[in-house]
Amino acid sequence: MTTDEFRRAGHDAIDWIADYLDNIEHFPVQSKVEPGAIRGALPAHPPLDGESFDTILRDVNDIVMPGITHWQSPSFFAYFPSNTSPPAILGELISAGIGVQGMLWSTSPACTELETHMMDWLVEMLDLPDAFKSDAGGGGVIQDTASNATLAALLAARERVTDFRSNERGLTQTDQRRLVAYASTQTHSSLEKAMRIAGLGSENLRLIDVDEEFAMRPDVLDGAIRSDHAAGRVPFFVCATIGTTSTGAVDPLTAIADIAKQHDMWLHVDAAYAGTASICPEFRHFQNGVQHADSYTFNPHKWMLTNFDCNVFFVADRATLTRTFSILPEYLRNKPTEAGSVIDYRDWHVQLGRRFRALKLWFVIRSYGVEGIRAYVRRHVELARDFADWVRTDAGWDVVAPVHHSLVCFRHSGGDSVNQQILDTANASGRLFLTHTRLEGKLTLRMAIGGRLTERRHVEQAWQQLKASVPESA
Amino acid sequence: MTTDEFRRAGHDAIDWIADYLDNIEHFPVQSKVEPGAIRGALPAHPPLDGESFDTILRDVNDIVMPGITHWQSPSFFAYFPSNTSPPAILGELISAGIGVQGMLWSTSPACTELETHMMDWLVEMLDLPDAFKSDAGGGGVIQDTASNATLAALLAARERVTDFRSNERGLTQTDQRRLVAYASTQTHSSLEKAMRIAGLGSENLRLIDVDEEFAMRPDVLDGAIRSDHAAGRVPFFVCATIGTTSTGAVDPLTAIADIAKQHDMWLHVDAAYAGTASICPEFRHFQNGVQHADSYTFNPHKWMLTNFDCNVFFVADRATLTRTFSILPEYLRNKPTEAGSVIDYRDWHVQLGRRFRALKLWFVIRSYGVEGIRAYVRRHVELARDFADWVRTDAGWDVVAPVHHSLVCFRHSGGDSVNQQILDTANASGRLFLTHTRLEGKLTLRMAIGGRLTERRHVEQAWQQLKASVPESA
Repeated sequence: MTTDEFRRAGHDAIDWIADYLDNIEHFPVQSKVEPGAIRGALPAHPPLDGESFDTILRDVNDIVMPGITHWQSPSFFAYFPSNTSPPAILGELISAGIGVQGMLWSTSPACTELETHMMDWLVEMLDLPDAFKSDAGGGGVIQDTASNATLAALLAARERVTDFRSNERGLTQTDQRRLVAYASTQTHSSLEKAMRIAGLGSENLRLIDVDEEFAMRPDVLDGAIRSDHAAGRVPFFVCATIGTTSTGAVDPLTAIADIAKQHDMWLHVDAAYAGTASICPEFRHFQNGVQHADSYTFNPHKWMLTNFDCNVFFVADRATLTRTFSILPEYLRNKPTEAGSVIDYRDWHVQLGRRFRALKLWFVIRSYGVEGIRAYVRRHVELARDFADWVRTDAGWDVVAPVHHSLVCFRHSGGDSVNQQILDTANASGRLFLTHTRLEGKLTLRMAIGGRLTERRHVEQAWQQLKASVPESA
Repeated sequence: MTTDEFRRAGHDAIDWIADYLDNIEHFPVQSKVEPGAIRGALPAHPPLDGESFDTILRDVNDIVMPGITHWQSPSFFAYFPSNTSPPAILGELISAGIGVQGMLWSTSPACTELETHMMDWLVEMLDLPDAFKSDAGGGGVIQDTASNATLAALLAARERVTDFRSNERGLTQTDQRRLVAYASTQTHSSLEKAMRIAGLGSENLRLIDVDEEFAMRPDVLDGAIRSDHAAGRVPFFVCATIGTTSTGAVDPLTAIADIAKQHDMWLHVDAAYAGTASICPEFRHFQNGVQHADSYTFNPHKWMLTNFDCNVFFVADRATLTRTFSILPEYLRNKPTEAGSVIDYRDWHVQLGRRFRALKLWFVIRSYGVEGIRAYVRRHVELARDFADWVRTDAGWDVVAPVHHSLVCFRHSGGDSVNQQILDTANASGRLFLTHTRLEGKLTLRMAIGGRLTERRHVEQAWQQLKASVPESA
C-alpha cells in the first residue's frame, strides 16, 4: 500500500466509522449469528497474493458486521459500558501510526512522560490521594485491564509481606499456608484468578459476607481476620470495591481501611467501573477512605470515553511495585535507567512491551475537558435514576439493589423463569441488550447505562420493550 | 465532536500519519530530549473545557514528537523491530471504531471467530503442527506480549504437573521445592519474571549453558535434569528459543524435545522474533522439532507488519490451558458458553476483557498476501547477510554470532570502551539507532534489520556511520 493508497483507504476507513456510528442504532444490538457462521464465511486458506483495501472493507461489512454485538449502540445496556469516543479513536489511530514501543523511558520519552502526566492529571480529576502522584513516591501506570492491575497489586503485597523473598525462592509452605487475602462475595472474579496465578490458591481467599446493600460487612471481615490470626495465618491483602460488577455496590472503605491498617495489610481498591464518577464532586463521598489505600484501579475504558484497552493503576509506594516486577537484562540497559532519573513502565506490570496508550487518554481529556466528562457521567446517572423510578412505580417490578451510579438491578416479581423469558425476549428483539446476575439466588436483570450515544429515548424504548417482553402468563 | 467534525479530524489524522511516514527518515532516529522535558511542556492541570482537535494535533507535533524515538524509521536497528504497516494501522482504527469487547464468544462472535480463523491460517502459513489447529484439540489466541504467553504456558504446565490442584490450594512446599524449570542462559527475561509471578521463584529456574553459537547445550540440559531428579525434584518445564534476544540463536529443538518427552516435561517454544521467518519454507528447518511442543509463541508485532500489540500463542491441548484460567461468575454465564459449542478467549489468559485484534492481523495477511510477507522477510535477511559480509571483510571488525535471520551481532576489535564510543557516537548522529548486548563478557553491537521502510541505502548509511564513529584512538 503506497502512501497515496493509504490516504485514500484511511479516509474511507474514517468515513466507514462515521457512517457506522451515525447508523448504529439501526443494527440489532446483539448479534444473532450461530456458532461457526462467521468462520464458515471465511476462506479456508490465507491468500497468496495481496488484496485491495476495498475488498477487505467490503468483507468487514458482509462477513464481520453480522457477527458484531454493538457495544457502542445507544441501546447496549449489558455488562458495563466499554465506551469509546471520536477523540479516543483518533488517539488510538495516531498511536498506531507512530508505532512506538514504550517499554523504557529511553525507547520513546514522550510515551512515558505523557503517561506519567496523564496519571497525575487523573489523580487531580478524581481527587485521589496525593500519595498516588508521581512526585510523591507513588504513581500511576496504564494497564490493559483491571485483572492485571489486581494481579500487580496482589504480587506487590505478596512480595512486601515475604520481605521480597518469594520472587527469589518461590512460595514456601509457610507462605502458602499462612498468607490469606480478603474480599467480599461480590468482588470481581479477577481477584480469585490472581490468587491462583500468584501461587496462593483460591482456598486462601476469604469471601466476606455482604449486607443488604451488597456491601462488605466490616464486622465479618474483622472476625475472619482475627480468626485467621489466631490460627497462625497472616492476613496480608484486602480488596475493597467501589461499584461491584453485579450490583454496583460500594464497600465501606473507611472501616475496611481501619481494619487493614490495624493488621498491616495491603489495601487495594477496585473502582474499575465507578471510579470515573469521582470526576464529579458529588460522587466522591463513595471513595472516602481511599487515602489509606496502597493501590487503586479504575478503567477509563469503561465509562470515561476511552476505547479499550485503558485501565489505570495507582500505587502509594512505587518502589514496592517496581521491586516486584523489575528484571534488567543486559540488552535493556541504558544510561537514563541506570541514572535512576526516569520511570521505566516495564517494571510496573507483567508485560515488557507496551504501546502508546497515554495518547488517547490525552485526546479524550482535552477534547471533552473535565466539565465535558462530568456532563456525561451526570447524564448517565440521571437516566439510571429515572429508569429505577419507572421500575419502582410499576406494579410487578422491583429495583433490588441501591442505585449508586448508573447501574440498575431489577426484576419482575414473576420469578426466575419469567425474568429469563423477559431477558430472552427483550434481547431477541434487537432493540436493546442487557445481561443478568443472580442476587440471593434470584435471577436479576442489570441495566447498565453509560453509552456515549445513549439518550433518554433509548432508555425509554428499553423500558417499553422490557414491559412488552413479560410473558402473558406472568 | 460531531460526526462531521470526526470525519474532518479523522482525515487530518490519516494525512498526518501519511505525512509522518513519508518524512520519517528526516527525523533523528533516537529522541534526544532530557528527562522531564516533555512533562515540562505540558500544562500542570487538565483543561476544564474541551479543546479543538487542531490544537491537540498541533501539540502532538510540538510537544510529543520531539520525545519520540522513531521505531518505524528505516534506520531503526535497535532491539527487535516492532513494525507496523498501513493495513495494520487501518485494522487498529476500524477495531477502535467498532469498539467491541470480545471477552466471550457471545459478546461479539466475529471477534472470537475471526481470531480463531487467523490462528488457523497462521498454523498453515508457518507450517506449525496440526495439533495447534482449533479443530484438533489445540488452538491459538492473541495475547498482548510474549511475556504473557510465556506466563500462560508456565501456569498451564504448573497446573498439569500438580494435577490441577495448585490453583485451588496454592503451591505447597513440596511444589515449591520440587518444581524446576529450564531454559538457556540466553532465554528472554520474561521466563524468570513468569517464575516469580507464578510463585515458583527464580531459584527454581535453571539457566543452561550454551554452545559457541549461543544455543542451549542439550547434554547440559539432560545432566541438569538428571541431577534434579536424583535430588528428588520434579523437572516440569523447558523453554526453547528460536531466535534469542541477544543474538538470534536457535536452540536445538529436536534434541530438547526428546529430553522433554523422556521426562514428561512441558515444552514451550519462544519464537517471538524469528517465528515470522517460518512463512518462508527455506527458514522452516529452524523449527524442526516444534511438533513436540506443548506451546509455541511468536509476535506478529515484531516482524510481521502488524502493529503492537499482537502476540500469538498456540497450545497443543487447549483443555489444559482453559482449565488453568477459567473462572465463570454468574454475570458472565450465557447459553453458547454453557453449551460448550464456542471458544471464550477470556479463559486463555490473565485478562478478562479484550479488544478486536484479529482484525488487523486479517488486514495485514490479506493486504500483503503470504508472498508479500515472504518478500519482506527475505529482503531483511538478505540485507542482514550483506551487512554481515561488510563487517567481516573490514579489518578491525568482527561478526561474533551466527546470522540465522536478520540480526547481526558484531563488534570492533578495539574493546569495550571503543565499542561504547562507537555506539554513542553513531546514535548521537541521529542517522541510525542501534542497541547492544554483552557476549562472553564483551560489549557487542546488535544490528536488527526488519523495518518496513528499510532499504539497502539505509543499511549502507548505517554501516558508513558506524565506521565514521570509530574513535581516532582505535
